[in-house]
Amino acid sequence: MSKESQPESVLLCPLGTAAAPETELLCIFGTGDMGRSLGQRLLQAGYRVVYGSRRPHSCGPLPAGTQVMSHAAAAKLATLVFLCVHRKKYDFLETLAPQLNGKVLVDVSNNLKEDVYPESNAEYLQRLIPGAHVVKAFNTISAWALQNGPSDANRQVLVCGNCAEAKQTVVAVATKLGFAVLDNGSLSAARELEEFPLRLFPEWRLPLRLAVGLTATFFFYLVIRDVVYSYVEDGKDISFRIMVSLANKVCPIVAIIMLALCYLPGVVAAILQLYRGTKYKRFPDWLDRWMLCRKQLGLLSLGFAFLHVLYTLIIPFRHYVRYRIAASTILKMRENTTAVLDTTLAWRTDSFYSMGILGFGVYILLGITSLPSVSNALSWREFSFVQSKLGYLTLFLCTFHTYLYGWNKFLSPSNYRWYTPPGYMLSLVLPSIVLVLKLLLLVPCVDRSLTRIRQGWERTDPEDASKQALLM
Amino acid sequence: MSKESQPESVLLCPLGTAAAPETELLCIFGTGDMGRSLGQRLLQAGYRVVYGSRRPHSCGPLPAGTQVMSHAAAAKLATLVFLCVHRKKYDFLETLAPQLNGKVLVDVSNNLKEDVYPESNAEYLQRLIPGAHVVKAFNTISAWALQNGPSDANRQVLVCGNCAEAKQTVVAVATKLGFAVLDNGSLSAARELEEFPLRLFPEWRLPLRLAVGLTATFFFYLVIRDVVYSYVEDGKDISFRIMVSLANKVCPIVAIIMLALCYLPGVVAAILQLYRGTKYKRFPDWLDRWMLCRKQLGLLSLGFAFLHVLYTLIIPFRHYVRYRIAASTILKMRENTTAVLDTTLAWRTDSFYSMGILGFGVYILLGITSLPSVSNALSWREFSFVQSKLGYLTLFLCTFHTYLYGWNKFLSPSNYRWYTPPGYMLSLVLPSIVLVLKLLLLVPCVDRSLTRIRQGWERTDPEDASKQALLM
Amino acid sequence: MSKESQPESVLLCPLGTAAAPETELLCIFGTGDMGRSLGQRLLQAGYRVVYGSRRPHSCGPLPAGTQVMSHAAAAKLATLVFLCVHRKKYDFLETLAPQLNGKVLVDVSNNLKEDVYPESNAEYLQRLIPGAHVVKAFNTISAWALQNGPSDANRQVLVCGNCAEAKQTVVAVATKLGFAVLDNGSLSAARELEEFPLRLFPEWRLPLRLAVGLTATFFFYLVIRDVVYSYVEDGKDISFRIMVSLANKVCPIVAIIMLALCYLPGVVAAILQLYRGTKYKRFPDWLDRWMLCRKQLGLLSLGFAFLHVLYTLIIPFRHYVRYRIAASTILKMRENTTAVLDTTLAWRTDSFYSMGILGFGVYILLGITSLPSVSNALSWREFSFVQSKLGYLTLFLCTFHTYLYGWNKFLSPSNYRWYTPPGYMLSLVLPSIVLVLKLLLLVPCVDRSLTRIRQGWERTDPEDASKQALLM
Repeated sequence: MSKESQPESVLLCPLGTAAAPETELLCIFGTGDMGRSLGQRLLQAGYRVVYGSRRPHSCGPLPAGTQVMSHAAAAKLATLVFLCVHRKKYDFLETLAPQLNGKVLVDVSNNLKEDVYPESNAEYLQRLIPGAHVVKAFNTISAWALQNGPSDANRQVLVCGNCAEAKQTVVAVATKLGFAVLDNGSLSAARELEEFPLRLFPEWRLPLRLAVGLTATFFFYLVIRDVVYSYVEDGKDISFRIMVSLANKVCPIVAIIMLALCYLPGVVAAILQLYRGTKYKRFPDWLDRWMLCRKQLGLLSLGFAFLHVLYTLIIPFRHYVRYRIAASTILKMRENTTAVLDTTLAWRTDSFYSMGILGFGVYILLGITSLPSVSNALSWREFSFVQSKLGYLTLFLCTFHTYLYGWNKFLSPSNYRWYTPPGYMLSLVLPSIVLVLKLLLLVPCVDRSLTRIRQGWERTDPEDASKQALLM
Repeated sequence: MSKESQPESVLLCPLGTAAAPETELLCIFGTGDMGRSLGQRLLQAGYRVVYGSRRPHSCGPLPAGTQVMSHAAAAKLATLVFLCVHRKKYDFLETLAPQLNGKVLVDVSNNLKEDVYPESNAEYLQRLIPGAHVVKAFNTISAWALQNGPSDANRQVLVCGNCAEAKQTVVAVATKLGFAVLDNGSLSAARELEEFPLRLFPEWRLPLRLAVGLTATFFFYLVIRDVVYSYVEDGKDISFRIMVSLANKVCPIVAIIMLALCYLPGVVAAILQLYRGTKYKRFPDWLDRWMLCRKQLGLLSLGFAFLHVLYTLIIPFRHYVRYRIAASTILKMRENTTAVLDTTLAWRTDSFYSMGILGFGVYILLGITSLPSVSNALSWREFSFVQSKLGYLTLFLCTFHTYLYGWNKFLSPSNYRWYTPPGYMLSLVLPSIVLVLKLLLLVPCVDRSLTRIRQGWERTDPEDASKQALLM
Repeated sequence: MSKESQPESVLLCPLGTAAAPETELLCIFGTGDMGRSLGQRLLQAGYRVVYGSRRPHSCGPLPAGTQVMSHAAAAKLATLVFLCVHRKKYDFLETLAPQLNGKVLVDVSNNLKEDVYPESNAEYLQRLIPGAHVVKAFNTISAWALQNGPSDANRQVLVCGNCAEAKQTVVAVATKLGFAVLDNGSLSAARELEEFPLRLFPEWRLPLRLAVGLTATFFFYLVIRDVVYSYVEDGKDISFRIMVSLANKVCPIVAIIMLALCYLPGVVAAILQLYRGTKYKRFPDWLDRWMLCRKQLGLLSLGFAFLHVLYTLIIPFRHYVRYRIAASTILKMRENTTAVLDTTLAWRTDSFYSMGILGFGVYILLGITSLPSVSNALSWREFSFVQSKLGYLTLFLCTFHTYLYGWNKFLSPSNYRWYTPPGYMLSLVLPSIVLVLKLLLLVPCVDRSLTRIRQGWERTDPEDASKQALLM
């Protein structure tokens, strides 16, 4: 700050405000839940609060220390007006246009459903009172949080508006109430802000449905192949295996399939770009949607992998397992065979476990780097390195892990009960495809041209150029 | 930015500053540790630094390249003065009022204990020199961080002050030193900022005490019931079981009790609101305090659950367990009984494990969503969905898990050694109560009226209205 | 906001801008990948975009709805110009100085390698056109993110520049595009911003190399001691143990050594400060570098500890282990010995497991608190409490865990095959040293003087004072 700009700064902060900034008066329209909570909090933060109400004398209990008066009177007093009223009641505001002219008007409203109105509440409000500086804020904060202070999901106040000055005023109030403010730009972002409190994991829906679908399918498939089969063929009831053995078959299957599904779209996109020779043509919608939920696919898959690990680790103290082991020991005893260690088997099972452990380890790493605070701290070169390089490593390790599990069972016909392949074989199809395709894309010549395309190079394309010509 | 505002912007940034902004001069009062570290860092960031000292010629070594002079002289030179002096020495500043008039005065001071003074240091300072623009900043940053640059807990500089301009100046300096700035509003937040560096997990104390208490209680209870009992009654020394077996009994017990304690206050609050017919009466303090530490209760409980999982998973390779298994196998052998698999037992134990695994899985999910960066990214609808819906699911799964563990033992008197119930039975009391109460609250009619109350509706309450009347 | 400042705010937001802020025109120099992606996104956000190009009529396909014209013409139209051109082409801008005078010039450029130029691109640009307000921004965002909107590592736009006004304009655009902006101060930070996208975990390199080195060393050491040894001496092939048994020996060894290495520098620094009697002398470079990668050392060590846990937990269902157990059971059977439980062994092994579990538990806690979002929420008192107190607790528990593992093996010569000590003994050296040194530093008198030094006190040092004298 240079010396000459100093006097101005003095001018901007008259000692009056510096000495007693607490005494600022704010106005709230609406005495509903939101209005009350907001008023309460403003009082605690040291503001004076006046309510504007249609029926000033019969609007129910309000925070002690506040005043209630007609909208017009209240609006006159304050330079900042919070609007805690349902959108459908906005029309009464038009009559207040003169009083609200040049004032900061904070739209706190939310709708009960998405897309009920053509334009956002805030923009509608701005249209009603063009003279006011409408700012959208606090609508992402729950009334509960306003009463009890910021916490967890109620720490950030999202703000948007066209007038920087007005926004600054609201930011000051919000920070004073203890919230962290995130500026979302101009009023055109209002719709987004109004949809925020209504959303319930939209980006997770598709992946979740997929996960549920896969789980159900494979569960029934395996129930039939294992439980029903052995009941029909051998008349044995092994239904008790559903709780753990089957669960521990379904989890890894779903996990690896979803992991593959998380890397497949990337490969498809690359092939598409190679085929089209440009990156500037939009992808088909299904591919776009697919690519946007890769993260969720990956995290869900990690969840299933986690369950798989737990289900595996409890194996040794299952009653059934202990029974089997004791039985086999006794059998060995009886047969009086001097057992020898099958080192090949030892090698195979041990590497099978090792691959699983390493795969899971890298997978956990992927999960950690996709935490918002971690990924924000990474440069995108670092992030893409982790997510693609380590991601494919995970996929490879897990696939290898599954192949080692299958080992030579692939050949023995006894595994194809009722002519159906075992679950893990089905689960191997997708991952294998993805890995093979990825390998093809890594062939130097292919890789080179793909890189060039990704850097913006395009195969010359006459009718495209002509299109461009028309535009000018 | 519209064209017409352009000239002004040019005016605001004279090319001088644009060309050489490095050469700005800042003043530091106080040559102690904080003063030195701050000066050093400012120099590195390209500022010129001048120190104000009472004894300019005998104030020990200062960063090379800085000057030392009398307070008055130093204050005259700079428009921004850092105050790195203990509060009790502030009085000398009054004499400097004229030189500090209109200057930005950054109060960096911290106290050694909380609540020693009636008002915060910064507000006291503002009172001493009403002409200066006092800004509280950098007090939450350690001297070490100032010497070595921002890291982990020393990245955010909290700032508060009454003059926006002055704050902006300080923000500029802080960002230039590489810190991220968080504006905490007006000077009235100064006390909070000054207490920040002193606090040591205040919100964790109560839950931690509780956890320690519960652990100790149940530990001794179980030592008596198991070790002492079998020593007295059967003369067997099974003290070796303390390290794992007992630990693995205490952990889950404490975990599930604390989980229940984390959801109990919510239920109590709901009942209270139903009974009062309003949400605008304050809860009793104990309930408020309880509700504010729910998160900590939950996380501690998760910690115990985590230990429980680890303790369980190492069971199979405990020396004692292997010994027992071998013994039982040999016994079977000797008796020459052809053992048959008890499928009911298999069913029960397997579902017991399954419930535990699923419960733990959902629990981990809860833990992840309570990470600051994750919860900040969620809308409060999403957050409350996860924390309440999934939270109760966790509680249910874990309770069910414990019931399956008990199974039919509840009836056999042999379990009530010395007429005391086993630990897991005691641990089941609270969770069961919470779940039952929650179920009652979910009964449609109850749920409906509760929702209405939570939306701000109130059972008409005459004397409350009259109170209101008195207020106006 | 006080009433009197209100009119001004009205003045600053003419209704024109409030009504239609969308129609703002922005200019982009350069029609490459970055330029196109940026233009596309700006269009979507409701800006009008005009491109400046050397060959306006042959610059390939551009986003529909944009115009292309000569640099001069384009510059005239807009008050904000994005510069998406390689640094080496900057010279053509000098001719445009008059048109760019007083305009906001956003430098988006990145270099392909670090430190190729003496000064940062942005500073070079400012030198070329002193009349423009150069702002460095968007260079940390990938073109892909510009096309598809902010995500993970592409959410934060880092901005720096000398003119606050100009910066504010860019911030407004960035927030409108949906990015979160982080102000990095003056243009002198430009180099840092330009190096950001190029970096690939620089702070992790050293620790990673160390980890790889240690792993390799101990792996070969153990292969020779176990596999090769038993092959040469007993002619037995136990190579199958490499996959799990050896891995599970290497992991914990590397983990505990790196944990010790993470706390060693702190101890060394303390001793150095005690010896020098001051904290104001710089540490030798190697120590500085070491201290700065402590966090990474700790996290890598945690990774190895995690693998160790997994490798341990799968032990019971390894083929080899089951074989051994069965064999031993059968042996017992044959010998017809009535085995008795060795309670000492039970005590020892159980406490061995317990220590491991508790150590791992606290370790996980350390890992969680080092997540950016968590550590930012902590005061540095809290952070240092966790990292140092709990850190040493972890080190102690893990070391104790290892000693319990060794137990009496230290003495029996049979463990020193080929006169080499087993791996875990080697791994115990460093941790033991660190713990002992730390204990010495905790001796009251030592601790007291260290604290005084850390608070800035210095042992009087004549020639230092004289140095100081010269400075003034």
